Amino acid sequence: MPANNIQLIPVNSFPEINPGDNLPLIISGTIKKEGIELSNNDIVVVAQKIVSKAEKRVVNLKNVKPTAFSKSVAKEVAKDPRLVEVILAETKKIIRMDMRKEGHGRLIVETRDGLILANAGVDTSNVSGGDSVTLLPLDSDKSADKIRNSILKKLGKKIAVIITDTVGRPWREGLVDIAIGCSGIAPLDDKRGQKDSRGFLLNATVMATGDQVASAAGLLMDKNSQTPLIIVKGINYKKGNKGSKSLIRESKNDLFR
Amino acid sequence: MPANNIQLIPVNSFPEINPGDNLPLIISGTIKKEGIELSNNDIVVVAQKIVSKAEKRVVNLKNVKPTAFSKSVAKEVAKDPRLVEVILAETKKIIRMDMRKEGHGRLIVETRDGLILANAGVDTSNVSGGDSVTLLPLDSDKSADKIRNSILKKLGKKIAVIITDTVGRPWREGLVDIAIGCSGIAPLDDKRGQKDSRGFLLNATVMATGDQVASAAGLLMDKNSQTPLIIVKGINYKKGNKGSKSLIRESKNDLFR
Repeated sequence: MPANNIQLIPVNSFPEINPGDNLPLIISGTIKKEGIELSNNDIVVVAQKIVSKAEKRVVNLKNVKPTAFSKSVAKEVAKDPRLVEVILAETKKIIRMDMRKEGHGRLIVETRDGLILANAGVDTSNVSGGDSVTLLPLDSDKSADKIRNSILKKLGKKIAVIITDTVGRPWREGLVDIAIGCSGIAPLDDKRGQKDSRGFLLNATVMATGDQVASAAGLLMDKNSQTPLIIVKGINYKKGNKGSKSLIRESKNDLFR
Repeated sequence: MPANNIQLIPVNSFPEINPGDNLPLIISGTIKKEGIELSNNDIVVVAQKIVSKAEKRVVNLKNVKPTAFSKSVAKEVAKDPRLVEVILAETKKIIRMDMRKEGHGRLIVETRDGLILANAGVDTSNVSGGDSVTLLPLDSDKSADKIRNSILKKLGKKIAVIITDTVGRPWREGLVDIAIGCSGIAPLDDKRGQKDSRGFLLNATVMATGDQVASAAGLLMDKNSQTPLIIVKGINYKKGNKGSKSLIRESKNDLFR
């Protein structure tokens, strides 16, 4: 690959993940088995869904008893009250509740981690059994650390890991992928203080590199979860060990909640 | 490049663009001169800044006389009243005005095109002369069409074009790149009705492919405008000739304005 190019490589033949699986080992093993040559500084991008499944963040709605409050919210947004119960258990604050005639309702909340997500990131698609849903990992940064450490140990390469989720956005149609867990990469790249090509100070350019990498990898992650692992080569990123939380805007600086 | 991989190639040695330049010709010429082999279905990603400059969407603030209203808004958000005058001329609706003690003010508006952007996309960095600013192209989809047609004519390849801008977002820190102009690609990829790997219907998965491609290319576009042109290979995108506007959520469906 020529210098300065970026390459995104999907890891094919990734096995179905089941609750309790050792995901870091499976990731290292599959990269090796597929003959993908890792280099230091590559970024390994992992879909949240397989992390959640391996970490047993799966709930069968059959076992959920909704409270009266969950039932009332469920009625408002036209969702299964048991699903709403699971969503609200992940929720710090309800940001918007909405029932439109033309579609199903929307329930947009702030999770305990501070992410603002529809349904608190609870996902009803592609979990074994029609009544099962996945929750976000309890600590996606820690999950990313484990994958990074396993790859260092098993494959001998110092890489970065990003765990992604697929989210909606205000103002724009369509979903994009963002970084909800990071290890070995600083998700924000602060260019303030640098000068532009004419010598003028660049104003307030802090790029969300973690989210841009997530979106790039998302182009190869089909939503059928058959391609949950992408290797990204050639990005000149800043290293960091503080996880993904700097991507989350503090409530007091946010004009839209 | 192996099948299914994505490759992003920055076009180096891109010349400085001046008002009135024939940008489509310069793009075709530079791709050829740099020896980059284009293939059918590649995506050519172009930074808004050079499109604006070529299309003379540059205003020297020295020639701007702010109205009383612009002066009052400028005071509220601590900006140059002449800059606010230029921003408001691009504005359909003010979405948020904010002055925080810890930073400079924020002026977030809906542009005539329906985009929601800080400062209506008016950019104060990297324009010849310290008092010059760029405005967004008048019709970015049309600008993308012209580049696409020029490449077909000059290089004989059927490609797609995306024009990008760098934007802030609610809830998340850091800027990302989005698609503000498209030609030859459908920016939304609607997967509703498809089934997941277990046979369950995927719910409401419409991916914002145009924005994800913009973000991917943004990883190589340094903000000094030295790399405003990126070639993207290997994306299996849906073709389309309706431009970028389907990425913009209609006001009546938006919970956050």
